[in-house]
Amino acid sequence: MLMKILYDDVANAVEWISSFGGLEQGGTTRLLYTPQWLAAQNALKERMTNIGMQCYFDDVGNLYGRFEGSKYKDQIIMSGSHVDTVVNGGKLDGQLGIIAALLAMQHLKENYGQPLRTLEIISMAEEEGSRFPYVFWGSKNVFAIANKKDVENITDVEGINFVDAMQACGFQFSTQPARSDIKAFLEIHIEQGGVLEKEQKSIGVVTSIVGQRRYNIRLIGEANHAGTTPMGYRKDAVYAFSRICHESINKALKIGDPLVLTFGHVEPKPNVVNVVPGEVLFTMDCRHTNKSELIGFTEEIEADMVRIAKELGLEIEINRWMDEDPIPMNDKLIHMLEDICKEEKLSYRVMHSGAGHDSQIFAPRVPTAMLFVPSIKGISHNTAEDTKTEDLVEGIRALTYALYKLAYQE
Amino acid sequence: MLMKILYDDVANAVEWISSFGGLEQGGTTRLLYTPQWLAAQNALKERMTNIGMQCYFDDVGNLYGRFEGSKYKDQIIMSGSHVDTVVNGGKLDGQLGIIAALLAMQHLKENYGQPLRTLEIISMAEEEGSRFPYVFWGSKNVFAIANKKDVENITDVEGINFVDAMQACGFQFSTQPARSDIKAFLEIHIEQGGVLEKEQKSIGVVTSIVGQRRYNIRLIGEANHAGTTPMGYRKDAVYAFSRICHESINKALKIGDPLVLTFGHVEPKPNVVNVVPGEVLFTMDCRHTNKSELIGFTEEIEADMVRIAKELGLEIEINRWMDEDPIPMNDKLIHMLEDICKEEKLSYRVMHSGAGHDSQIFAPRVPTAMLFVPSIKGISHNTAEDTKTEDLVEGIRALTYALYKLAYQE
Repeated sequence: MLMKILYDDVANAVEWISSFGGLEQGGTTRLLYTPQWLAAQNALKERMTNIGMQCYFDDVGNLYGRFEGSKYKDQIIMSGSHVDTVVNGGKLDGQLGIIAALLAMQHLKENYGQPLRTLEIISMAEEEGSRFPYVFWGSKNVFAIANKKDVENITDVEGINFVDAMQACGFQFSTQPARSDIKAFLEIHIEQGGVLEKEQKSIGVVTSIVGQRRYNIRLIGEANHAGTTPMGYRKDAVYAFSRICHESINKALKIGDPLVLTFGHVEPKPNVVNVVPGEVLFTMDCRHTNKSELIGFTEEIEADMVRIAKELGLEIEINRWMDEDPIPMNDKLIHMLEDICKEEKLSYRVMHSGAGHDSQIFAPRVPTAMLFVPSIKGISHNTAEDTKTEDLVEGIRALTYALYKLAYQE
Repeated sequence: MLMKILYDDVANAVEWISSFGGLEQGGTTRLLYTPQWLAAQNALKERMTNIGMQCYFDDVGNLYGRFEGSKYKDQIIMSGSHVDTVVNGGKLDGQLGIIAALLAMQHLKENYGQPLRTLEIISMAEEEGSRFPYVFWGSKNVFAIANKKDVENITDVEGINFVDAMQACGFQFSTQPARSDIKAFLEIHIEQGGVLEKEQKSIGVVTSIVGQRRYNIRLIGEANHAGTTPMGYRKDAVYAFSRICHESINKALKIGDPLVLTFGHVEPKPNVVNVVPGEVLFTMDCRHTNKSELIGFTEEIEADMVRIAKELGLEIEINRWMDEDPIPMNDKLIHMLEDICKEEKLSYRVMHSGAGHDSQIFAPRVPTAMLFVPSIKGISHNTAEDTKTEDLVEGIRALTYALYKLAYQE
């Protein structure tokens, strides 16, 4: 299938969408319910309208544009992503998925006319949790699973209330029912990691989104004079931490993909050169695509930590504050995307997603799949975030073909 | 030798001296050249004068009181310590050494009359470096080795200049020559560690003050997304730190006393739960009583760190910013103190000092020895710093006897 997804069209569309909240140094800051956010949604609505789409906002500001199907108009083939960014974010995270869907659907309409099933873009209000401490506000509202109580009393760093910010943009709490007409959801996104680049692939076909467990852990020993306390009399919390971190990561290295384990935050007390640290607060982040593997590994590490603390005479408090199951993508869609890549001779690999995405809210509810394109140097959530336009074109070609198969074929 | 060092006299003297800069919650804050500091020095001068001592300040505010010797008046038997404290310090660190010398010399004068050699107390201006970033200002001025250039341009946290603070108390830069008449120097001090308490000893006879090497070390890896970066692609600076800390402290534990090794400060970047740490700044503090052991061990650890960083693909910067040699105490004085403890049936042990003291400035220049008394729970530099009065009495008894031997015997 010959698809003319043009290099310049893609480059121009990325520049255009990232200009709403665009930063001098490149990249985008576009937080939920800010003027930049509203400008982007309104501009997208205008652009969708101009290519003949029927456009509408839902109650909370998710934007939709549709080409109605001729035969199965109530079977929705949906694609899109989130329009919000992190502070000093890139030009691709989230917004690529919207622009890609737009270019793909525009191409299909121009070349193949009205689809059998309805093609629908979604530009989701929010995913990042960058302005308010709440994530997946957009996708959760698609399925009426957002908890109003969770946002009623939250504020941004300037003290502006979530509800006030929403109302200032003309939106209210959602009273809409969950969507039940979506037959398939496809999301294209940057990888936000370095695997595709290292392996020189243009496309990742995502098989699942990892489950995550996150912990705050406190080791409580005894602060002592670094000179006058013999080694044998110490309850050194940094030493205990170092043993836990060293041994745990050694285990994770042996197991390898798709397991990852990170001790990202370490905060000793009193944290000065000449005092044996009496306390360490640290975090652990563990991810895996398989739920039982994730549980099994983290339970082993938890037991190790308790044992090590006991051996060294320290107390330990383990607080697991995030526990999210892995989310598999739809098998049929995965195979369809693989077949497309083979047929079109696109360089690809199947892989999991180590980061969270809107697709994880869709996948338990409707058949869902994701495509990744490479992140240069694995950088994301950063103004330096980038992908070669050639790779974007390849990704959008695969998406376009997939939407064709889903919306134009019986 | 029967010495009536009275429990109440000791308790009262400690309460009295620690009341200058005394804190509501107990303990003392008495920083160099503050009104509290000047009040303490003036009160000490008055008290010394009242018991018949000749008293004088030197150029920088070290206070001296002397009972002149009848036969060898130019042979000085000196005892004392520093009058300054840390912020929220205890009632004993430093000031005990002054009060103890005062009670001891008063007792000797009252019971044995004029000494053969001159007995001299020193209440040193400064040791802690708590107000200005300079340590051992008092003792270094005794030997004319303080560097004026080092203090001319330094200020306290409020921006007050060292020289201005000194002049406000009536002192000037020192123009005095080094003291060359001191025949022996004895200092009694709290242990600031938990060894004596754990071993239920009242007295420590100090054989040496440890040498110290302190480092700032920077590990430079690569910050990456904690979810999307496979274990094999990481340059995790916290993992590298944990391996260095774990393996180094294991080595130190095997070697044991008198070696101590502390990683007191750890500062990862960016220090958040979901980012593989790209950098860690950490400190290492290593102490030993033997210079070649100290050098040998730290050089081995330095080489280990370089090797580990290389193996893991990280860069490392090692900055050794402190390198102080161990300071042995005088053998004859050590043996004399041991003999006294045996003769008087005082419970004691020989030990090294893991912390720095004024005695380390004296020891290379004049015969010097130190006595320790126990620190309850090893606590010091804290308002909770304490020692049983019974133990203080024992320590002062040993000091008194030692001063007797040095000043009253041929």
